[in-house]
Parts: sequence; structure tokens; C-alpha cells
Amino acid sequence: MPELRQNFFTKEWVIIATERAKRPEELATHRHLQDVPAFVENCAFCPGNENRTPPEVLRYPENSGPSWSVRVIPNKFAALSSEVQLTRSLTHLRRRVEGFGYHEVVIDTPDHSACMAILPDAHVAKILNAYKERYHTLSSDHRITHVTIFKNHGADAGASLQHPHSQIIATPVIPSQVRHRLHEALRHYDDCGECMFCHMVEREIEDQTRLVLKSELFAAMEVFASATPFATHIFPLRHMATFGEITAAEITDLARVLRTLLAKFYVGLENPDLNFTIRSGPSDYVGARHFHWYVSIIPRLTRVAGFELGSGMFINTVLPEAAAEFLRAVSVERAAGATG
Amino acid sequence: MPELRQNFFTKEWVIIATERAKRPEELATHRHLQDVPAFVENCAFCPGNENRTPPEVLRYPENSGPSWSVRVIPNKFAALSSEVQLTRSLTHLRRRVEGFGYHEVVIDTPDHSACMAILPDAHVAKILNAYKERYHTLSSDHRITHVTIFKNHGADAGASLQHPHSQIIATPVIPSQVRHRLHEALRHYDDCGECMFCHMVEREIEDQTRLVLKSELFAAMEVFASATPFATHIFPLRHMATFGEITAAEITDLARVLRTLLAKFYVGLENPDLNFTIRSGPSDYVGARHFHWYVSIIPRLTRVAGFELGSGMFINTVLPEAAAEFLRAVSVERAAGATG
Repeated sequence: MPELRQNFFTKEWVIIATERAKRPEELATHRHLQDVPAFVENCAFCPGNENRTPPEVLRYPENSGPSWSVRVIPNKFAALSSEVQLTRSLTHLRRRVEGFGYHEVVIDTPDHSACMAILPDAHVAKILNAYKERYHTLSSDHRITHVTIFKNHGADAGASLQHPHSQIIATPVIPSQVRHRLHEALRHYDDCGECMFCHMVEREIEDQTRLVLKSELFAAMEVFASATPFATHIFPLRHMATFGEITAAEITDLARVLRTLLAKFYVGLENPDLNFTIRSGPSDYVGARHFHWYVSIIPRLTRVAGFELGSGMFINTVLPEAAAEFLRAVSVERAAGATG
Repeated sequence: MPELRQNFFTKEWVIIATERAKRPEELATHRHLQDVPAFVENCAFCPGNENRTPPEVLRYPENSGPSWSVRVIPNKFAALSSEVQLTRSLTHLRRRVEGFGYHEVVIDTPDHSACMAILPDAHVAKILNAYKERYHTLSSDHRITHVTIFKNHGADAGASLQHPHSQIIATPVIPSQVRHRLHEALRHYDDCGECMFCHMVEREIEDQTRLVLKSELFAAMEVFASATPFATHIFPLRHMATFGEITAAEITDLARVLRTLLAKFYVGLENPDLNFTIRSGPSDYVGARHFHWYVSIIPRLTRVAGFELGSGMFINTVLPEAAAEFLRAVSVERAAGATG
């Protein structure tokens, strides 16, 4: 029997097609985990080609010359520009803002072949630390309202370059996806006097059926009303509205949880294309009691966007509970072994 | 200089990438307008194969036997079922509804090759009339809150069958896309005492820059803050909240406007895959003063979903004003000629 489920954070209804549900393993890419070379001479992100990118804004370790481990650079093909004046206008309901903003690229590693799923946890922690540093720097520009950090892995997820990288976009406006969640979160807080995310995470941990893994400081779970197969959230157990509030201990723990999840996808679904996004409150929400940041991972396993655009509703053919059971069972020793 | 524009109906911000803007004609598919056969023996929607579909719920002309012009049938692979009991439950913020609903298919024409862009206007009017009849029948089930009518044309738009067809989904819930628009529309009505759609349409007709065509009863225009290239809206000039209120004269006029627009896409962009949706208010909104139904056409010309999922913002590389100018100039005599 099909089931309609409502996403509590967004109030979006999703059709869970239990009738024609697929077993999770049916969605594996059957893509040969091909040997990607560790160095590609004409790749602008590979070591030795640093002069082919705009001057960097961050390097780990500092002044490390060509033996860097993480670099952050302005995006050469930026969607927004930090060199325009921030002006707003409203004419007959038509609201415009000059395209002010920052658009940066985090080069995750010098190794062309080392996607995040197979990097050592300690290296992933460095990348998260770079995210945090840039989050703080960009947020400190008073014209910036929101900072989005995300990764597109694979062509179907929108990545145009193979070399492992992430992106940071800082905008003078709040993306509507965030705005909707803020509205709902404020309403819940006002009705119930609690953070709706804290409430939900507590119940999901009790319930266990959608839980994938839990560490000391984070919990990862499949989404109850997941619009697409295997949508996964990682929540900090401590209440925090913005990503910038993350501590060093939390970065270490999140690196392990995120890397383990990505490795479970890499092994269990054979390196699927995927996006992940850090969904943080706006940068001035530090200390807010109604919002809670989290990481959203969306593997790109299906192409059902047509139906969704037409009908206004997503159809998900994998039960989130089955996806969670599948992911719990995937052993990631093989992936960890790949990096020694 | 890039520009951020806000969709007034949804408050979604979109990046209009004027820096790297494409000329509209660059998005043409360069797909050879191939000869599709008018009859395919093993197509379940072709005449003579009526027994291969579930029993029809509507046929034009009535009792026409094998010489029908439009048929409506229940979807054999329905996402929702009308045979389950409508029950709702809420457990720990997890809201579920049994998958009750209707999912029907409109077979637009017996001619396998006659996509809507090249059908005679009078035939398109018959299809719209079938939409209206089914809208009324499904809305009269008191368990149904909302009826969505849409078309997926081409594989990239989610069509799994080539034979021209449309779909109708009737649900006991309101899709979140509609819910957001209703909220914003009610707010505008309460603030300004007017329908925000009527206001916008009036200004766009005055302004002309995004207007594609205007008939006696409808106006078609490019969307000011269009998330993707060539998103086009058709508005009835008379204020109406639900599609079911359309008159016979309006059906005749809309058929011509819709067909002309589809033909402009067919000729100008070489038969791109596309979706169109009739965005109606919920079925009990008859007479509501704050909402206004319209047709939304979305050609599927780009695959940028990765960036959007990651960043939370769409980037549109075609200026809506340039798209409107391009569409105004496309002559559709050739397409009309194709059907004699």
C-alpha cells in the first residue's frame, strides 16, 4: 500500500511507493570502482599547477609551498561577485539584488584520486576545519546573511571537475530552502517551547529503525519522509543553530561519522554521485534556540525530477527503513583499507 | 554583473548569471525533428489496443468505439490508489497518510506522432475539456483536496512512454509547492487587498519586456525570477482560483495560446523535452479572491540540479527578457503546417 509521508521540517508531502519498492541494493551503480590516477598533469587542482588558479585565500599547512594538504581559492567561474556593490531594488513586486556574494572552492586534497569516502578521517577533519575558518571569515562581512557549504561528487551531482573539491557560497539573501525551514522551526519553538530538530533526533535515536550510526557527538539517520532514496542527515547532538559554533572535538567526531557514511555509500552503492550540504542557520543565528544545523547527504541514484516538477510531489521507491538497515550492514573496512 | 532576483510567488531567490548568459538559441536541442510513426503496433495507447489499458473513465466522442479522439484511463502503475482507506496518523512528529488518491492518464490523441505542439487547436481544446471534466469528477470526492494536471514530454521530462499523454493526480493533501504559493498569496491579499497574480499580470502586460503573447482571455510571459531557462506562465486574465472554473470560451482561447507556445518551443528550440503543469488552487477554493490558477511550462534544457541541491539556489543562464524576445520572434507557421 503506498504511503504519503510529510517532512516535518518543510511540510513537504512525499509518496513512498511501497508497492513498487526497490530493495536498496538494486540501486547500486554497478560502476567499476575504476583506478583514478593520483596526479593529472593538466588538472588545475593538482599540485604544481597552483598558478593556474586564482590566488588562494587559505592553505593548510600555512606556507607549506607545494606540499599543501588543503587549499581554498575563489571560484574562477563564480556565480556571484564580491566586487559589485550590494544594492537592492523593488519595482512592481519585482525584487532584485545586484549579484554580490562570495563563491569559493575548497580543494579537498592534492591527490586527484582521493575522494572523501577514502580519505583518512584526520584529513577529512582538516577539510571541515577549512570550512569552519572560511565560514567565520565570510560571515564577518556584514553584508553576508548566509553561508552555504556543499559538495557535488560526480557529474550527475553537478561536479564539472573530477579532482575532489567542495564549494562555499556566501549570499546577502537566505536561500528559500533555508527560509522555509526557519519558518517551520520558529513555529514549532513557539508552539512547543523546544527545538524541533532536537525533539526529532531524540525520538529517532529511541526508535532505531532509521538510525544508521551514532557517535558520542553526532547521529546519522535516514530521513522519514525522504524525497529520494537514501537521503541521510547527520545531526550534532548538542543544540547549535549555526555551523560556525562547532568545536574542535566535534570536528574530529563529525569527520569520522561523515567519512564512514560516505564510505558506506562508496562500498554499498558503488561510488554513486552525490551531494552533501551543511544546512546552517543564517550567520547571525548564533545562539538561536529554534534552529539546529545539520549535514544533508543526497545520493543521485534516480532521475525522477520530471514527475516531481509535473506533479509537485516526489515519489521515493526505497523505504527509508530499508535503506537504514542496508547502510548499517555495509562494512567499510575495504574502503578504509584503500588508503592504508 | 550577476543579479539575484526573487520570485514574488514563492520568495525563492534565483541567480541570473548575466555574466555568462547564453543567447537563447544556444539552447536549441539540435535534435532532428524525426519522423515518429503515426501508429505503433505494440503501443498500449494506439488505437486497436484499448483492451491493453485499464477500462477507460472518459472517451471523446462518447461511445465512439475505435475512432475516439481522447481517452482517459486509470494509470496502470499508479503512485496512489483509490482502493485504500484514507487514514491519517501522527507519531512523534511523523505524519503519515495511507496512499489514497487517484492517478489517471489522458491519452491526448490516437496519433502516436502528434505531440501537442503540432495538434490542431480544436483538438487541444478537447484535451483541455477532458482535463476539466476529470477535474470536476475527482474534486467531487470529498476526500480529495487537490488535483494536479500535468504533462511530461520527452524522457528528460520524465515521460516513460512516447505516445502523447498527460497525467492527473488527485490527492488528499496539498503539494508543498502549492501550499507555499497559497501562504504567500494570502499574505499579499491581507496586506494589499488584491490578488498578487492579477497585480503582477497587469504590470507585466504594461511592461511588455517579458510578455510572449496576449490573447483576448490569456497572457503568456517569461518568469521574472525564472529558476531555469524559458520558464513560461500562462495566466487567465479573469480572476479565478481554480482550474475547474474555466469556461468553454476560455478553453477555446487557452487551447490556441498553449498550442502556439508549445509550437514556438517545438520550432525555436527544436522539440525540447518539457513539463507543463496546471497550478490550480485546492478544489474547495472556488471563488477565493487571493489565489489565481495558471499554467507553468518548464522546458528541460539544462541539467544544473546538482548545484541547486547543493547551494540551495538555482542559476539561470538565460535572461528571461532575452527568452521572451526570442519566443516572440519564432514563427510557428511551419509547425501548424505540419498537421495540414
